[in-house]
Amino acid sequence: MWTRSLVLSAPGKVILHGEHAVVHGKVALATALNLRTFLRMTPRQDGRVSLQLPNLGSRRSWEAPELRPLLAAVPPSAEQVEKLKEFAGGDNGREAVQTVAAATFLYLYLSVASKCGVMPAVDILVWSELPTGAGLGSSAAYSVCLAAALLSLCGAISYPLQEGQEVARWTTEELDVVNRLAFKGEQVIHGNPSGVDNAVSTWGGALRYISGKISALKRVPTLRILLTNTKVPRSTKVLVAGVKAKLLKFPTIMEPILTSIGAISRECEGILEAMTGEPSQEDYSRLEDLVDINQHLLNGIGVGHALLDRVCEVTSSHGLHSKLTGAGGGGCAITLLRPEAIRDLTHCGFECWETVIGAPGVSAHALPCLRAEVQKALQGS
Amino acid sequence: MWTRSLVLSAPGKVILHGEHAVVHGKVALATALNLRTFLRMTPRQDGRVSLQLPNLGSRRSWEAPELRPLLAAVPPSAEQVEKLKEFAGGDNGREAVQTVAAATFLYLYLSVASKCGVMPAVDILVWSELPTGAGLGSSAAYSVCLAAALLSLCGAISYPLQEGQEVARWTTEELDVVNRLAFKGEQVIHGNPSGVDNAVSTWGGALRYISGKISALKRVPTLRILLTNTKVPRSTKVLVAGVKAKLLKFPTIMEPILTSIGAISRECEGILEAMTGEPSQEDYSRLEDLVDINQHLLNGIGVGHALLDRVCEVTSSHGLHSKLTGAGGGGCAITLLRPEAIRDLTHCGFECWETVIGAPGVSAHALPCLRAEVQKALQGS
Repeated sequence: MWTRSLVLSAPGKVILHGEHAVVHGKVALATALNLRTFLRMTPRQDGRVSLQLPNLGSRRSWEAPELRPLLAAVPPSAEQVEKLKEFAGGDNGREAVQTVAAATFLYLYLSVASKCGVMPAVDILVWSELPTGAGLGSSAAYSVCLAAALLSLCGAISYPLQEGQEVARWTTEELDVVNRLAFKGEQVIHGNPSGVDNAVSTWGGALRYISGKISALKRVPTLRILLTNTKVPRSTKVLVAGVKAKLLKFPTIMEPILTSIGAISRECEGILEAMTGEPSQEDYSRLEDLVDINQHLLNGIGVGHALLDRVCEVTSSHGLHSKLTGAGGGGCAITLLRPEAIRDLTHCGFECWETVIGAPGVSAHALPCLRAEVQKALQGS
Repeated sequence: MWTRSLVLSAPGKVILHGEHAVVHGKVALATALNLRTFLRMTPRQDGRVSLQLPNLGSRRSWEAPELRPLLAAVPPSAEQVEKLKEFAGGDNGREAVQTVAAATFLYLYLSVASKCGVMPAVDILVWSELPTGAGLGSSAAYSVCLAAALLSLCGAISYPLQEGQEVARWTTEELDVVNRLAFKGEQVIHGNPSGVDNAVSTWGGALRYISGKISALKRVPTLRILLTNTKVPRSTKVLVAGVKAKLLKFPTIMEPILTSIGAISRECEGILEAMTGEPSQEDYSRLEDLVDINQHLLNGIGVGHALLDRVCEVTSSHGLHSKLTGAGGGGCAITLLRPEAIRDLTHCGFECWETVIGAPGVSAHALPCLRAEVQKALQGS
């Protein structure tokens, strides 16, 4: 059992190409973002388990023994997830993001506890640079951080950070254990997730996903991307169901569109893997073509939004190319940045982050080596 | 040889679905519009041949004998077309629309003259309700009118209007002769036309076109369409070449998009043929889905334009669904009108016509039965 405080982080993700089509057996490309979720875990002596989520303004704690009757909820069935949410609900509604976050934590905590036969008393604080509900994999980064921390805590995996190291990562085998548990956390949150988000957050870099098979891209290129949040809330479930309904209504029309989206992913993968160092003008031009075509196809399958079109229009007036990323219907757009370009979309009322793709996966940190802002956030209140 | 004045008209067309995809072997649906081109032909006694095109502000005349050396230009080769344009050029440039219109007339006149062995002296005036260069088949309507008039003049086909009739049409066999000659006129204008435009203008109604095979839709439904001209000029040739270049660059991405567009045409055909009378709410809803999807796909293959998007946006804000029609890159958009809707796009600076699809093909008219405006236009100056 781990007795010191530990700090770790896991990245968010963007889907470059293949959102929605991936649900219907086509290739998607996802890549880790340099926006991360951080976790600090400190053992307690009083038998309590506490969870602080400053982004959600949420602070909960439980007596470890009162959690014991919930151990039956492992692995999660729909019914058991409901039971956990009910338990975690508190003053918030059952579907409140705070409730779901607490239920996910409880689920992961109980999973590890049942595996290790102990119910450790800990303070856990999770703070994120990622906006929630924007398709950037914030829930997966949350699950991955919790899974890695709890598995390290009970010794199911090592805690890799050595004295004097700034940052360290787990072994491939350990990451596999983290990823599998994080996926179960994602199931609590999303019901039927694809597994892409937790894989990207665990492994980092860029991944190719098709029909449940995830493989790392051989090369993770240097590609700067502007992320723009339209701040339009949307439901991934409703959007996915809408595409399915259209596919049933117009199969001969929709199937080739999804095929084309899959081909865009493959083409993009080929370009990225063939790149040596900085993309050439020709690479950019092809990547921009793919972004444009895919954005139109995503509109065609009905997952666009007027404000996403607006982002495309504004960036296009600066010679830049954008597409929605993730579920669409609002949420975020990604814009390919050419190195010579420095621009700002904030005057349109959008939130923008300039990011680099292919960030490292879940990592253990020495707290003093983290940015002051992150250190401050992890102090808690 | 015909000795009286004769009047006839031929309709323009809109492509409902399948533009561009048709070039790559997919189905297109085209339908005749109730916007028409009118022709009045009057025999002369002075051996001259004159052509008045009030829409183009053009008036030309030739001595019949001076045309004789041009007879060798039948059938047209690229070189012979150049020769005709040079002859017809006058003060305008070789590629001026007036030059091309005169060359087309001369080509059709000489074709018929060589077939019949005479060079009749006539005044011909052609006036159109159709804008030129907007993808509404104005050149085909022009060719069809000329072909029908000249073939009637020299007795190769009848002139079907009987004493006391308001309007009359040719037999199927005669229409076939008209269509074949009109296609040659289209070749003078466009180089390598698909043959859809002249077929729709000749036969009227709605046609299905695939790989050179044209067939009439069994049922021509009542469907009101708003036509909006963005007035953005564009070159069909350049747009077609752009799609071809994209297809060569990204075959696995572009081919399924074209397949999807073809499937949209087939789906639309199925809906139209299954309709009995006025479309139902369900018919409208499906037809609107097809319009939306196709507009996005056409953007995807690179033939959209910001002003076409603007038309879609404005009509969408009124609950209406629009797509580009024809070559795209500007030109016209069509908007499905539900019967309950009366709207106006003119305040956006666009030109709009509310039209009905499935108009009759080339027709002979009694001049006094035509609208006053048309009668006035056909008086000439």
